[in-house]
Parts: sequence; C-alpha cells; structure tokens
Amino acid sequence: MPNASFEPPRRILMGPGPSDVHERVLNAMARPTIGHLDPAFVSLMDEIKDLLRYVFRTRNALTMPVSGPGTAGMESCVVNLVEPGDRVIICHNGVFGGRLADMARRAGADVVVVEDEWGRAVSPDRLEEALARNPDVDLVGFVHAETSTGALSDAQTLARIAHDHDALAIVDTVTALGGVPVEVDAWGLDAVYSGTQKCLSAPPGLSPITLNEEAAARVRERKTPVQSWFMDLNLVMAYWGGGKRSYHHTAPVNALYGLHEALLMVKEEGIENAWTRHRRNHDALRAGLEVLGLRFIVPEAERLPELNAVSVPEGVDEGKVRGRLLDEHGLEIGAGLGGLAGRIWRIGLMGYASRPENVLLCVKALGEVLSDEGVVLDVDGALHAAESALAASTR
Amino acid sequence: MPNASFEPPRRILMGPGPSDVHERVLNAMARPTIGHLDPAFVSLMDEIKDLLRYVFRTRNALTMPVSGPGTAGMESCVVNLVEPGDRVIICHNGVFGGRLADMARRAGADVVVVEDEWGRAVSPDRLEEALARNPDVDLVGFVHAETSTGALSDAQTLARIAHDHDALAIVDTVTALGGVPVEVDAWGLDAVYSGTQKCLSAPPGLSPITLNEEAAARVRERKTPVQSWFMDLNLVMAYWGGGKRSYHHTAPVNALYGLHEALLMVKEEGIENAWTRHRRNHDALRAGLEVLGLRFIVPEAERLPELNAVSVPEGVDEGKVRGRLLDEHGLEIGAGLGGLAGRIWRIGLMGYASRPENVLLCVKALGEVLSDEGVVLDVDGALHAAESALAASTR
Repeated sequence: MPNASFEPPRRILMGPGPSDVHERVLNAMARPTIGHLDPAFVSLMDEIKDLLRYVFRTRNALTMPVSGPGTAGMESCVVNLVEPGDRVIICHNGVFGGRLADMARRAGADVVVVEDEWGRAVSPDRLEEALARNPDVDLVGFVHAETSTGALSDAQTLARIAHDHDALAIVDTVTALGGVPVEVDAWGLDAVYSGTQKCLSAPPGLSPITLNEEAAARVRERKTPVQSWFMDLNLVMAYWGGGKRSYHHTAPVNALYGLHEALLMVKEEGIENAWTRHRRNHDALRAGLEVLGLRFIVPEAERLPELNAVSVPEGVDEGKVRGRLLDEHGLEIGAGLGGLAGRIWRIGLMGYASRPENVLLCVKALGEVLSDEGVVLDVDGALHAAESALAASTR
Repeated sequence: MPNASFEPPRRILMGPGPSDVHERVLNAMARPTIGHLDPAFVSLMDEIKDLLRYVFRTRNALTMPVSGPGTAGMESCVVNLVEPGDRVIICHNGVFGGRLADMARRAGADVVVVEDEWGRAVSPDRLEEALARNPDVDLVGFVHAETSTGALSDAQTLARIAHDHDALAIVDTVTALGGVPVEVDAWGLDAVYSGTQKCLSAPPGLSPITLNEEAAARVRERKTPVQSWFMDLNLVMAYWGGGKRSYHHTAPVNALYGLHEALLMVKEEGIENAWTRHRRNHDALRAGLEVLGLRFIVPEAERLPELNAVSVPEGVDEGKVRGRLLDEHGLEIGAGLGGLAGRIWRIGLMGYASRPENVLLCVKALGEVLSDEGVVLDVDGALHAAESALAASTR
C-alpha cells in the first residue's frame, strides 16, 4: 500500500503532449479551491471564455472548456451535432481521424471515411469527390493538425468545400491551437475542439471548444436528445452560458485556474508571436535533425512546426533510444501510434516547451544516444546547424 | 480582455461540494507535469488504484478514476452496463436519481422509475415491489447518499434485493465515499462511482469508479458497442489496466497528483477514523443548528452526517443569507436543488472541511446573520451546544 507523496522526476516534455507547464500555471493550480457557483468563480469562467475566444480568433458565444481531456471535447462536438441517421464524412489521415469516425458511428451516423495517406495533409480533392458522390451530407469532420503524424491540413479550404455542399465542419485543433494559425471566424469553422496540454501548455484534462451560430442552432434544434447527458451542450450551457448559472456538473475548479493562467500567458506573448516562435524553433530543430540524418515523414509544405515526426534509422531499437533519453537526459519524446508504431519518433516543440534551449538539448541528447547505439553521425555539426538557425531567426 | 492572474478569495467550503482542499493536496497539484506514459506516472497510476481500493473497501481489479467529474463517472457506469432495450429500474429520491434515469434512457434502456419521497432514504419495499412487477430487470440504479437532500440509503439491502432478482446494482457514492461506510465487496455492490471533491477533499474533476467481476464481464461481453468512445471501459482499461499501457486519452496528470495525495491523507487518518470524525462533527453541528431552531428535512435515522439539509425559516430570504455568509464570513453553504430550491440550505461537513472549528464558525456565522435578518434566536446557546457536543465526543 502506498505511503509516500508522489515526487515526479524532472522531465523536459518534447513528446506529442503533455508539454512543459510553466511554473506560473502550476502555481495557479495550487491556489485554494472555491465553489463552482461562487461569484468570483463565475467571473473567472467569463474571463476564460474571453481568453479562449482570443486564442480561437472567434466571437462565438458558445466557447468554453469541456470538463475532460481533448477526447471528451471531440466527443462533445460529435454527439451534439450528430443525430441518428445523419450522413457524415470523415477525412482519415491519422489516428485521430479514425477516432472521429468511430465516435460518429457510435452516435448513429452513416459514416463515409475518406482515406488519405498517413503523414500527408488531407486532400481537398478527395473530400470534394466524396461530397460529389454522397449527396446530403450533414457533417464533415477532419483533423487540422494530426498529432499521430505531424501533418497540417488546410482547414480553411476543407471547411469551404464542406460549406459548398451544405455540410458543417467539425475541426480537430488539439495540436494546432496556439502553435499554428487557427482562424475560427475567418475560415468559417463550425465546431472546433482542442486540448490544453499541447501548445497552450496547461496541464491535460480540459478541452476548449467553440461552435458558431449555425452549429449552435443545430444543437438547439435537434429532434433527438444528445446521447450523452454529461456532454449535452443544451444542459452544459445553462452553467457555462451567460446570465444566471445553474448547476450541471461540478467544474474542475483548480484545473480551470491553470487554464486561465496559461491562456493569459498566450495573450501576454501575443498569439501571432507564439506562432512565430513555434515556427523558428521548428526550423532550428529541423536543421539539427537533418544533419543527424533523420528524415521527416511529412513533406515540408505540410509539416506541423510543433510536432516533428521523423523515421527511426534502420537497425535502431526505437524504444531503447526513448528510454535512454528519458533516463539519462530527462527528455521525453514520443513513439509512433497505430501503423507508425515502432517506425517513427514524434518530437514535440509545443507551448512552453518550444524554447531554443530545448531544441539544442534534443539535438545533443538524441545525437549522443544514437552515436552510442552505433549510428554514425555528426553531433557537433547538428548542434552547429541548429544554433545557426536560431541565431539567424532572431537576428 | 482579462489581464491579471486569478487570485481566489479565501473561502471555507461548507456547501455540497467542492469541500476544502488541504494544502498538501494543492501543493501536490503544482508539481511539474510529466508524461502520461512515463514509467514514473504509470507507477503513480498503480498507487492510485491501490488507494482507491482501500477507500472503496474492494479488491476489484477494475478500479480507477474516470478523467472527468462525478457526472462522467455516473455516465461511465451507465453507458458501459446498459445495452439498448435493457430493462433498468432507477430509485428516485432526489436530483441524482433523476439524472441516473435520464442517462439510462439516453443509453437506450427501458427505464422504470421508482419514486421515493425527497428527503427520505430509498424504500427497499418499493424496490422489491417494482422488481416483482417488472420481470427480467437487468440493472437497478440508486444513490447511496443523495447530495440534493442529505438522505442516506441502505446500499447493502438495496443491492441484495437487486441480486435476488438477478439484476446488477449501480450505486452512486459521490457524497458517501470517505464520509460514511461504503463497503463495496462486503455489500456486493456491482458498479460504483464517486467524486473527488466531497469527503475525499481533492479538487473536483475526477470520478473514481469500481466494477466487480460480474459487472466487468457484462462490459466485456456486450453485444453492441458502448455509445461513448471516451467512456468505453473496454478501451479505457488498455490504459488504466495492468500490463502494457497503451494510449487512450491523455490523463489529467496534475489532477491525479492531487487525488493521490488526498487518498494518501485518508489512508494516514484511517478510513474508519474519517467516518467517526464526520459523525462527531455532524453531531455537534446538529446540536448547534437545533438550538438555532433550524429543522433537518431528513429523519434522524436516514441522515447523512456530511450533508446537513435544513429548512429555511419562514420569511427569510435564503439567497441573501447565503450571500452574506459568503461576503461577511467567507463561508459557503449550499442552496436547494430542483423542487427544494429556495426552501432548504445544504451545509456540508465533508472531508477536510469536517473540522470542529468549521462547526463553530458555521453555527456562529449563521446565527449572527439570521439574528440580523430578524429571526429571534439564541446564538450563544447554539454555540454552547455545539461546543459541548464536541467536548463530549472527544472525551
């Protein structure tokens, strides 16, 4: 039976999330718990909604954090928008597209999956074809930033195609939000969900969502009840909406303190500056990894700066390398998922973890471990390339 | 646009939850975030499962915290155990029984609701009659400790009646766990969920659940998929079960640090001692409230020590009194829910908030505010009664 407090080891989190959490956010979570209907807490909720509108670039009234991880936000969007028998197209270019399709089926949708290559952006042409072949589609779902492969899709174009066919777009921005532009209003995204533990650098456990008026109206005007009571936005918004707040579930008070502080830090930096920072640190990491001979699995134009998926060199035990990075350098990088398990590493540069010193740490540590495992490579050259890229980008 | 960190006001939380969180638990949540697949985190998960088995008094393998508030734990039990067309009986003696029935309907069950009086325990006779009238019932759901009324039901007897009719029992112990005996194994409870923010005194946002082998087998052997992907225990247990852990969703890492510390504190105290403490502080509060002329809505034998529901005196503006307690004394007590809104106060003595000084604070503050609002009463006498009860109980 356990009898001691848990003291986590010190890690640098450069996997696919969670990312490193700033001390300000950690400290915010340790503030005393107050009631979920306390007037001071209701003010905090309003501030969180405003800050989420800032990062989502939206004026949507229905903008709030779901009281569960990103997967709960995904399911909230699906089960609120899907009615049994609805026709749904899901673009599938990685693990999370597959999850979206599974959820839509469980919600009773008639699902058509458009298969794309893993490691590539979703093909707008293939979506267009699928919509032409399948009349009366109600919803299109796709992943803006595929966390399983590091591919970035053109959310604006995909949403426009959906709208051209009178379908609404559900968009997964779990790994996108805060790391690359996500323009909910300008791109006309209808229902968007994200996570807190990626480029927002809050701890995992909450899922920001935002629905525009078209999507919100569809939820209000459903003919059948939402299959989930917990996620039913018609009930949830009695608590998270404006005006008098009535009890739905007990909000995760301290986690919301953390999210508020993390969002405040994004606003202090300026979200455009955060996008630039993610891009610069990615460029430097890429320069270093390329000298180490590591190949990115995603073509350059479709690459997500905050999640770098590279092939494991021939003959290398990928799990052993990750284990050594963790044990010897306190550095976490991620493994592949699904069909990419054992074949790639996923190196995150997300949120607070996206810092020059982490770029250099990763290039050095990975280079040293790979050398030690018998891969011939130029660690000094790689470090030099990363340093040069950093120097050039901040000049 | 918000531009300052949130500093919560200092409160004493004596509502229906969240309850006060100990500094040790708050500090635990502020420790650095690590990865949800980190070997150190996997060890923490194992410890949390062991500690949950300790508080639930069970050896159930399937024991874990759901990554969402108590409502998500409730829905996890319902959607995993209910298949479309299943026959379900829900005992309804308050808000949470009603919620259980709603969830079971949304999961496709054929639901029979057994109505009990609000403010009373669930009637075993009425459940027995309902089971006799309705053959082939698959599941019986009831609330052990009704948070909306403060009524404690006889979970052991109700579960036995369900078993006599070959039905499994889903039991809501959100407000019970840690405050009154909950004997999952000895009473044969099949699927049990709870919350963290009541008598365990961790922050809200997680929901411990435990399923015995009969319930777990029913989930494994379902003919239809669980309607929720997020809550599907067949998927969740690939992460929370033993052996190799595979990714399902990103666990709320820091919230779990807090839960671990809170459970450790329960174990340090000894759960039987925690039950005794809740009983003693309730007795003292009751003594004080009775001198203030406040009447409990639940008969003494059916009363929950950790949640004291009392009628609002005639002519008193209950919202104004709660507002003054909060503003002038930093004391939160709860309002009524549903049909009891405006008619009762719910005064919690849960977890870390169940302390002698809080009993006295509440009697004094409530007495003073009520006096000030024109109710004639004996504040000194009430304080004396509470103090005497405390002195007698610890002698």
